[in-house]
Amino acid sequence: MLTSSKPLSNQTLVSGIDVNDITHFLLELDALKRVNRRSYVTHTTRRENSAEHSWHLAMACWSIAEMFELDVDHEKLLKMALVHDLGEIDAGDTFLFASSRHAAHIEERAGIARLQAERGNGIANLAEIWEEQETGSSKETQLLRVVDRLLPFLLNLNTEGKTWAESEVKRSQVAAALAFIEGSFPTIHDWLTENIAYAVQQGWLIDS
Amino acid sequence: MLTSSKPLSNQTLVSGIDVNDITHFLLELDALKRVNRRSYVTHTTRRENSAEHSWHLAMACWSIAEMFELDVDHEKLLKMALVHDLGEIDAGDTFLFASSRHAAHIEERAGIARLQAERGNGIANLAEIWEEQETGSSKETQLLRVVDRLLPFLLNLNTEGKTWAESEVKRSQVAAALAFIEGSFPTIHDWLTENIAYAVQQGWLIDS
Repeated sequence: MLTSSKPLSNQTLVSGIDVNDITHFLLELDALKRVNRRSYVTHTTRRENSAEHSWHLAMACWSIAEMFELDVDHEKLLKMALVHDLGEIDAGDTFLFASSRHAAHIEERAGIARLQAERGNGIANLAEIWEEQETGSSKETQLLRVVDRLLPFLLNLNTEGKTWAESEVKRSQVAAALAFIEGSFPTIHDWLTENIAYAVQQGWLIDS
Repeated sequence: MLTSSKPLSNQTLVSGIDVNDITHFLLELDALKRVNRRSYVTHTTRRENSAEHSWHLAMACWSIAEMFELDVDHEKLLKMALVHDLGEIDAGDTFLFASSRHAAHIEERAGIARLQAERGNGIANLAEIWEEQETGSSKETQLLRVVDRLLPFLLNLNTEGKTWAESEVKRSQVAAALAFIEGSFPTIHDWLTENIAYAVQQGWLIDS
């Protein structure tokens, strides 16, 4: 382990910062690990939480962006992935096929505003980055939306469709929720379409 | 939801990519959610896993870097945080105070090489980024090391020292593991020192 005898930070600036504020904010963030989603982690009987999902989304966006040589800003992409579900700390996760889905963004936005103002938060543009992933149309936002749908589909497909079966989800609901991908990422949309058919064939999605 | 009628990717390039390879790699990554660490998530009786920890580390490094106005490259910092524990998919997590701790990097490095070569991995410099967080001395690496020690300390402190008590950890072990922070981040080291004393006072760390 290399040690550094030179502090990383400016010592004049530091004198105005209380580390108790920083740890307060870090504990606020810890709460995202307690927000459970509907999908199960593969090879477990445990539901995925929104913190580990956010890590998976960041990694997946990064890998896919490089593989397809997409012209995206990686810093922006990763930051959007890391914060995209932070509003759920206060609002909770809303299932893609829940009737309340269209209104989820209101409580989530309020949750982001609360975190933005929390003592110890150093991220000046937290709400701005969240807003861009929520309502923007940049390439980074478009990619994030595709991968944010791909991942739970992939988990459901690899846990014998348990999440779909539990909520009696129909083929047509899944197809409608994924339809937008045909425009922005046709090759992934083709793969999803094939695998919706497979899930129906397995009896995991209702054929209607 | 905005839809785009223009694909994000170059369609000639896409024809050579099999989405089944991509989903294979994404499922390989899912395994990090099954690697449990020693610390508990606050307000739960559940151990933290390495995927959600990696998300927390990325967020914490970002927030602290901004608050202290550190001269670091955010893209590099976040990428290092996201991959820093990926070697544990094959090697498992090694407790900070385990006797095997000094040798953990060997198996972890092999695990990274395996993931780097996995079909569907788009991240060309995965092993390089991992190596930098493991053996480098950049400002990003130094910050990451500080925060990677701060977070489990903070969780242990806020779960009544359960992790420390379970393994009969001594004050001197914790102090030694955190000593390097005195050079790179004295203000955080001061906070840790105060809270080691508090943990001893509470009977969570053995006073020796």
